[in-house]
Amino acid sequence: MTPYYAVIFRSERTEENKEYAEIAHLLEELAKKQPGYIDFVSGSGLNNISISYWEDLEAVKRWKNNATHQLAIKKGKDEWYKFYKVEIALIERAYEWNREQ
Amino acid sequence: MTPYYAVIFRSERTEENKEYAEIAHLLEELAKKQPGYIDFVSGSGLNNISISYWEDLEAVKRWKNNATHQLAIKKGKDEWYKFYKVEIALIERAYEWNREQ
Repeated sequence: MTPYYAVIFRSERTEENKEYAEIAHLLEELAKKQPGYIDFVSGSGLNNISISYWEDLEAVKRWKNNATHQLAIKKGKDEWYKFYKVEIALIERAYEWNREQ
Repeated sequence: MTPYYAVIFRSERTEENKEYAEIAHLLEELAKKQPGYIDFVSGSGLNNISISYWEDLEAVKRWKNNATHQLAIKKGKDEWYKFYKVEIALIERAYEWNREQ
Protein backbone atom coordinates (compact mmCIF):
# COMPACT_ATOMS: atom_id res chain seq x y z
CA MET A 1 0.00 0.00 0.00
CA THR A 2 1.36 3.40 -0.95
CA PRO A 3 3.27 5.25 0.21
CA TYR A 4 6.32 3.01 0.56
CA TYR A 5 9.97 3.24 -0.43
CA ALA A 6 12.00 1.75 -3.25
CA VAL A 7 15.75 1.68 -3.67
CA ILE A 8 16.56 1.55 -7.37
CA PHE A 9 20.03 0.11 -7.98
CA ARG A 10 21.38 0.29 -11.53
CA SER A 11 24.76 -1.27 -12.18
CA GLU A 12 27.30 -2.22 -14.81
CA ARG A 13 29.48 -5.12 -13.80
CA THR A 14 33.02 -5.87 -14.86
CA GLU A 15 32.40 -9.51 -15.85
CA GLU A 16 30.33 -12.56 -15.02
CA ASN A 17 31.50 -13.79 -11.65
CA LYS A 18 30.38 -16.78 -9.63
CA GLU A 19 31.18 -15.20 -6.28
CA TYR A 20 29.08 -12.16 -7.20
CA ALA A 21 26.10 -14.38 -8.00
CA GLU A 22 26.45 -16.24 -4.70
CA ILE A 23 26.74 -13.13 -2.57
CA ALA A 24 23.88 -11.43 -4.45
CA HIS A 25 21.70 -14.43 -3.60
CA LEU A 26 22.81 -14.41 0.06
CA LEU A 27 22.12 -10.69 0.35
CA GLU A 28 18.66 -11.10 -1.14
CA GLU A 29 17.88 -13.78 1.46
CA LEU A 30 19.25 -11.53 4.22
CA ALA A 31 17.25 -8.51 3.01
CA LYS A 32 14.04 -10.56 3.23
CA LYS A 33 14.63 -11.02 6.95
CA GLN A 34 15.05 -7.32 7.70
CA PRO A 35 12.28 -5.36 9.42
CA GLY A 36 10.30 -3.29 6.93
CA TYR A 37 11.25 -5.41 3.91
CA ILE A 38 8.52 -5.61 1.26
CA ASP A 39 9.93 -7.05 -1.96
CA PHE A 40 12.94 -7.39 -4.24
CA VAL A 41 12.99 -7.53 -8.03
CA SER A 42 15.98 -7.83 -10.30
CA GLY A 43 16.83 -8.21 -13.96
CA SER A 44 19.84 -10.23 -15.03
CA GLY A 45 22.99 -9.65 -17.02
CA LEU A 46 25.95 -7.31 -16.76
CA ASN A 47 23.80 -4.18 -17.05
CA ASN A 48 21.24 -4.64 -14.40
CA ILE A 49 18.34 -2.92 -12.65
CA SER A 50 17.43 -4.16 -9.17
CA ILE A 51 14.79 -2.67 -6.91
CA SER A 52 14.27 -3.38 -3.23
CA TYR A 53 11.05 -2.20 -1.58
CA TRP A 54 10.74 -1.07 2.05
CA GLU A 55 7.99 0.13 4.33
CA ASP A 56 9.71 3.37 5.31
CA LEU A 57 12.95 5.35 5.15
CA GLU A 58 14.13 3.91 8.48
CA ALA A 59 14.06 0.41 6.99
CA VAL A 60 16.01 1.68 3.95
CA LYS A 61 18.70 3.17 6.21
CA ARG A 62 18.95 0.11 8.45
CA TRP A 63 19.48 -2.09 5.41
CA LYS A 64 22.08 0.28 3.99
CA ASN A 65 24.00 0.15 7.28
CA ASN A 66 23.70 -3.63 7.72
CA ALA A 67 27.24 -4.96 8.26
CA THR A 68 27.00 -7.77 5.70
CA HIS A 69 25.52 -5.39 3.16
CA GLN A 70 28.37 -2.93 3.80
CA LEU A 71 30.92 -5.70 3.19
CA ALA A 72 29.20 -6.50 -0.11
CA ILE A 73 29.26 -2.80 -1.12
CA LYS A 74 33.01 -2.71 -0.44
CA LYS A 75 33.53 -5.93 -2.43
CA GLY A 76 31.44 -4.45 -5.24
CA LYS A 77 33.64 -1.36 -5.44
CA ASP A 78 36.84 -3.40 -5.19
CA GLU A 79 35.89 -5.97 -7.81
CA TRP A 80 32.45 -6.29 -9.32
CA TYR A 81 31.22 -2.95 -10.56
CA LYS A 82 32.25 -0.49 -13.21
CA PHE A 83 29.45 1.82 -12.30
CA TYR A 84 26.40 1.96 -10.14
CA LYS A 85 23.67 4.43 -9.33
CA VAL A 86 21.37 4.35 -6.33
CA GLU A 87 18.07 6.22 -6.22
CA ILE A 88 15.90 6.49 -3.11
CA ALA A 89 12.28 6.71 -4.22
CA LEU A 90 9.01 7.36 -2.45
CA ILE A 91 6.34 5.32 -4.24
CA GLU A 92 3.32 7.60 -4.25
CA ARG A 93 1.00 5.53 -6.39
CA ALA A 94 0.95 1.98 -7.76
CA TYR A 95 -1.41 -0.04 -9.92
CA GLU A 96 -1.24 -3.31 -11.74
CA TRP A 97 -2.97 -5.18 -14.51
CA ASN A 98 -3.31 -8.92 -14.85
CA ARG A 99 -4.59 -10.78 -17.92
CA GLU A 100 -6.22 -13.41 -15.71
CA GLN A 101 -8.42 -11.00 -13.78
CA MET B 1 18.98 16.75 -9.70
CA THR B 2 16.58 15.50 -7.05
CA PRO B 3 13.71 15.64 -6.61
CA TYR B 4 12.44 14.18 -9.89
CA TYR B 5 9.98 11.46 -10.86
CA ALA B 6 10.39 7.89 -12.03
CA VAL B 7 7.79 5.58 -13.50
CA ILE B 8 8.76 2.00 -12.71
CA PHE B 9 7.16 -0.43 -15.15
CA ARG B 10 7.49 -4.15 -14.38
CA SER B 11 6.02 -6.57 -16.87
CA GLU B 12 5.70 -10.19 -17.86
CA ARG B 13 5.15 -10.72 -21.55
CA THR B 14 3.32 -13.51 -23.28
CA GLU B 15 6.07 -14.31 -25.81
CA GLU B 16 8.88 -12.77 -27.83
CA ASN B 17 7.27 -10.61 -30.46
CA LYS B 18 8.83 -8.54 -33.22
CA GLU B 19 6.04 -5.97 -33.31
CA TYR B 20 6.42 -5.43 -29.56
CA ALA B 21 10.14 -4.74 -29.95
CA GLU B 22 9.48 -2.26 -32.79
CA ILE B 23 6.77 -0.35 -30.95
CA ALA B 24 8.81 -0.33 -27.72
CA HIS B 25 11.66 1.27 -29.65
CA LEU B 26 9.33 3.81 -31.30
CA LEU B 27 7.79 4.72 -27.95
CA GLU B 28 11.20 5.21 -26.40
CA GLU B 29 12.13 7.61 -29.21
CA LEU B 30 8.81 9.42 -28.76
CA ALA B 31 9.24 9.68 -24.97
CA LYS B 32 12.61 11.37 -25.48
CA LYS B 33 10.87 14.19 -27.33
CA GLN B 34 8.34 14.90 -24.60
CA PRO B 35 8.71 17.95 -22.36
CA GLY B 36 10.13 17.03 -18.96
CA TYR B 37 11.75 13.80 -20.18
CA ILE B 38 14.99 12.95 -18.35
CA ASP B 39 15.99 9.35 -19.10
CA PHE B 40 14.84 5.84 -19.88
CA VAL B 41 16.43 2.57 -18.77
CA SER B 42 15.27 -0.94 -19.49
CA GLY B 43 16.32 -4.50 -18.96
CA SER B 44 15.56 -7.16 -21.56
CA GLY B 45 13.71 -10.45 -21.67
CA LEU B 46 10.16 -11.55 -21.00
CA ASN B 47 10.26 -10.44 -17.35
CA ASN B 48 11.33 -6.88 -17.58
CA ILE B 49 11.90 -3.77 -15.49
CA SER B 50 11.82 -0.44 -17.35
CA ILE B 51 12.10 2.98 -15.73
CA SER B 52 11.35 6.33 -17.33
CA TYR B 53 12.47 9.49 -15.55
CA TRP B 54 10.64 12.80 -15.65
CA GLU B 55 11.15 16.28 -14.27
CA ASP B 56 7.77 16.47 -12.53
CA LEU B 57 4.38 14.81 -12.12
CA GLU B 58 2.87 16.92 -14.92
CA ALA B 59 5.36 15.42 -17.38
CA VAL B 60 4.48 11.91 -16.10
CA LYS B 61 0.76 12.57 -16.69
CA ARG B 62 1.26 14.11 -20.12
CA TRP B 63 3.23 11.07 -21.22
CA LYS B 64 0.63 8.70 -19.80
CA ASN B 65 -2.09 10.48 -21.78
CA ASN B 66 -0.08 10.73 -25.01
CA ALA B 67 -2.26 9.25 -27.78
CA THR B 68 0.43 6.97 -29.24
CA HIS B 69 1.33 5.75 -25.76
CA GLN B 70 -2.34 5.03 -25.04
CA LEU B 71 -2.56 2.97 -28.23
CA ALA B 72 0.49 0.97 -27.12
CA ILE B 73 -1.07 0.40 -23.68
CA LYS B 74 -4.20 -0.97 -25.37
CA LYS B 75 -2.11 -3.20 -27.64
CA GLY B 76 -0.17 -4.38 -24.60
CA LYS B 77 -3.33 -5.44 -22.81
CA ASP B 78 -4.78 -7.05 -25.94
CA GLU B 79 -1.65 -9.00 -26.87
CA TRP B 80 1.72 -8.51 -25.24
CA TYR B 81 1.40 -8.67 -21.50
CA LYS B 82 0.42 -11.28 -18.95
CA PHE B 83 0.97 -8.87 -16.13
CA TYR B 84 2.29 -5.42 -15.46
CA LYS B 85 2.74 -3.13 -12.52
CA VAL B 86 3.27 0.62 -12.64
CA GLU B 87 4.72 2.58 -9.72
CA ILE B 88 4.95 6.36 -9.64
CA ALA B 89 8.01 7.32 -7.60
CA LEU B 90 9.39 10.58 -6.30
CA ILE B 91 13.18 10.28 -6.34
CA GLU B 92 14.27 12.03 -3.17
CA ARG B 93 17.97 11.23 -3.28
CA ALA B 94 20.40 9.81 -5.82
CA TYR B 95 24.11 9.04 -5.88
CA GLU B 96 26.42 7.16 -8.14
CA TRP B 97 29.84 5.55 -8.11
CA ASN B 98 32.16 5.12 -11.04
CA ARG B 99 35.33 3.02 -11.09
CA GLU B 100 37.03 5.55 -13.36
CA GLN B 101 36.67 8.51 -11.02
